[in-house]
Amino acid sequence: MSRAPVSSGDRAIGTVAMRWHGGSLELLDQRLLPDQEHWITLEGSAGVAQSIRDMVVRGAPAIGISAAYGVALAARHAGGGDWKTEIKQAIRELAASRPTAVNLFWALQKMEQVFSECHSLEEAVKRLSETAVQIHKDDLSANLAMADYALAHMDASKPFSVLTHCNTGALATGGYGTALGVIRRLHEKKLLKDVYADETRPWLQGSRLTAWELARDGIPVTLNADGAAASILAAGHVRWVIVGADRITANGDVANKIGTYSLAVLARHHKVGFMVVAPSSTVDMALASGKDIPIEEREGEELRQVRGVQIAPAGVKVFNPVFDVTPASLIDVIVTEKGVVSTPNMTGMAGLFS
Amino acid sequence: MSRAPVSSGDRAIGTVAMRWHGGSLELLDQRLLPDQEHWITLEGSAGVAQSIRDMVVRGAPAIGISAAYGVALAARHAGGGDWKTEIKQAIRELAASRPTAVNLFWALQKMEQVFSECHSLEEAVKRLSETAVQIHKDDLSANLAMADYALAHMDASKPFSVLTHCNTGALATGGYGTALGVIRRLHEKKLLKDVYADETRPWLQGSRLTAWELARDGIPVTLNADGAAASILAAGHVRWVIVGADRITANGDVANKIGTYSLAVLARHHKVGFMVVAPSSTVDMALASGKDIPIEEREGEELRQVRGVQIAPAGVKVFNPVFDVTPASLIDVIVTEKGVVSTPNMTGMAGLFS
Repeated sequence: MSRAPVSSGDRAIGTVAMRWHGGSLELLDQRLLPDQEHWITLEGSAGVAQSIRDMVVRGAPAIGISAAYGVALAARHAGGGDWKTEIKQAIRELAASRPTAVNLFWALQKMEQVFSECHSLEEAVKRLSETAVQIHKDDLSANLAMADYALAHMDASKPFSVLTHCNTGALATGGYGTALGVIRRLHEKKLLKDVYADETRPWLQGSRLTAWELARDGIPVTLNADGAAASILAAGHVRWVIVGADRITANGDVANKIGTYSLAVLARHHKVGFMVVAPSSTVDMALASGKDIPIEEREGEELRQVRGVQIAPAGVKVFNPVFDVTPASLIDVIVTEKGVVSTPNMTGMAGLFS
Repeated sequence: MSRAPVSSGDRAIGTVAMRWHGGSLELLDQRLLPDQEHWITLEGSAGVAQSIRDMVVRGAPAIGISAAYGVALAARHAGGGDWKTEIKQAIRELAASRPTAVNLFWALQKMEQVFSECHSLEEAVKRLSETAVQIHKDDLSANLAMADYALAHMDASKPFSVLTHCNTGALATGGYGTALGVIRRLHEKKLLKDVYADETRPWLQGSRLTAWELARDGIPVTLNADGAAASILAAGHVRWVIVGADRITANGDVANKIGTYSLAVLARHHKVGFMVVAPSSTVDMALASGKDIPIEEREGEELRQVRGVQIAPAGVKVFNPVFDVTPASLIDVIVTEKGVVSTPNMTGMAGLFS
């Protein structure tokens, strides 16, 4: 990787898609991948909120980390009026950027807690920046821990293939990946045969991001249409379907990128393992089940056009939910940095936090 | 519809995407829909074979009809050398254009039979042209009969929604549609609430063709990503999933557009009806099961690019099977113009032809 590695010594921290310099946040514009690697520099929280909304940055953990940096930037630029009101306002605006992934709210809550303990703007600038960096570093550590747990759970001795959906790699997290972190670790341990990557319509995270990230790191990848996943599973090519999550409820239901639920039904039908990998910041114990998760619908243009090229009649009605809910009953295992929950249910999920 | 209607009086026949003038075949270039309605005029069989290969025309029945017209054109232009050899060569070339849909081979076999009975080139020109027109007209009649059978089977009294995949309408057939013909008839009978149309990656038949065709005919349509179908079924929005077929084997297994098998598993999981609509020319009683069907794989560029726009890293490995096989056990009913086979199996399928 050509980017600067994570630095533990000072305030600067950089990963594949995110660089923090203390006074500014640089984001790799994921809308332009794989053909352009363009970085956007943000010096205020409004730009960060906009970048989350417009999917310059995406992936539940990366959204949470970016939002934390957004609060740190808000503190740095506060002081024109009442600094407390200004920071609170920034937190509100960041919270409104996207509705489904809970890591955003989790990170903002952490920032708000620290903020409430600050007695001066000076202290807020310092502590909020430190906290954001810590959230970033903790996410990276969580990724590495999850990879360990997942491999121990799989207990494999020979290479096998996996299928994944969306992008859950360095681009979507603090820097290593959740589901793709597990896949990365399988590759490091020479246990990976091939990665089938769903292209993941409509936003094409699979073809644009996952294929780019895996190819870049020399990990084998085969791209397939989302509709081909069933044939791939039926052919016996895959032992595990491994995905990330945007929100996990108290009973183990999982909201994740649209198409995930379909894979869970297909995995069960074909007796293929179905693994969800997400940091504990993705778990929302306040929600009883997946029915309570707000599912974001995005504009129909995401289906009518691809990169500005019209592919459907203008104005045709579109149903574009960008997440779906997989019930716990279809999930074989949820892997977090706090441990693994097999055949998840309310008791198993509660056990993670006890 | 602005196109000339089917004429029964003379040799000219025209439907939404196909016009036969006796001496030439005009095809609406389906690669350019929905933004351009460009017609290609073909005067020889080589051009027809090329048009099938390149998907100017697609849809199992439409491919069969086009190939029949191709043979008729071959006869018309034969006579430079040995006319019999020339026509046989044209049939061979047409047969090699695409491997999966059996209607192509069925139509060519019909043409070959007539050809074998001809004693002169003059007779061949006349009879092959008449036979091709008859194949076209019979397909249209079959579409209408299937719509009747399907509605009788559904026995609905109140409007409901359906979900479909790929394009099986006037564009894909002799002029009315198989699965989309049933949907068209539901609309005519005021029994249709909404049509969810899978966009159908990679070739986007749903967004480019089905949405265009339904909007054009004033039939309600809502476009969705293939990966969203599971959520739509889970929400209880749909009573029937209705699809076409490219080949049906003696036991009732169905090869159809990639993504169909996934829908069949999802429909069963959600207790939604799964209906396959196809003329009896799609049934290949010579094959015992779906395992024997050759599945075409097309070039990876279909996934790496959309209309020339790069959406994945250049050269990334792609798995692009364009059909899949749905086992009979997941199909509730197969509708043909010869009648309906519920919970299809070998006995039920054989009954159709007895």
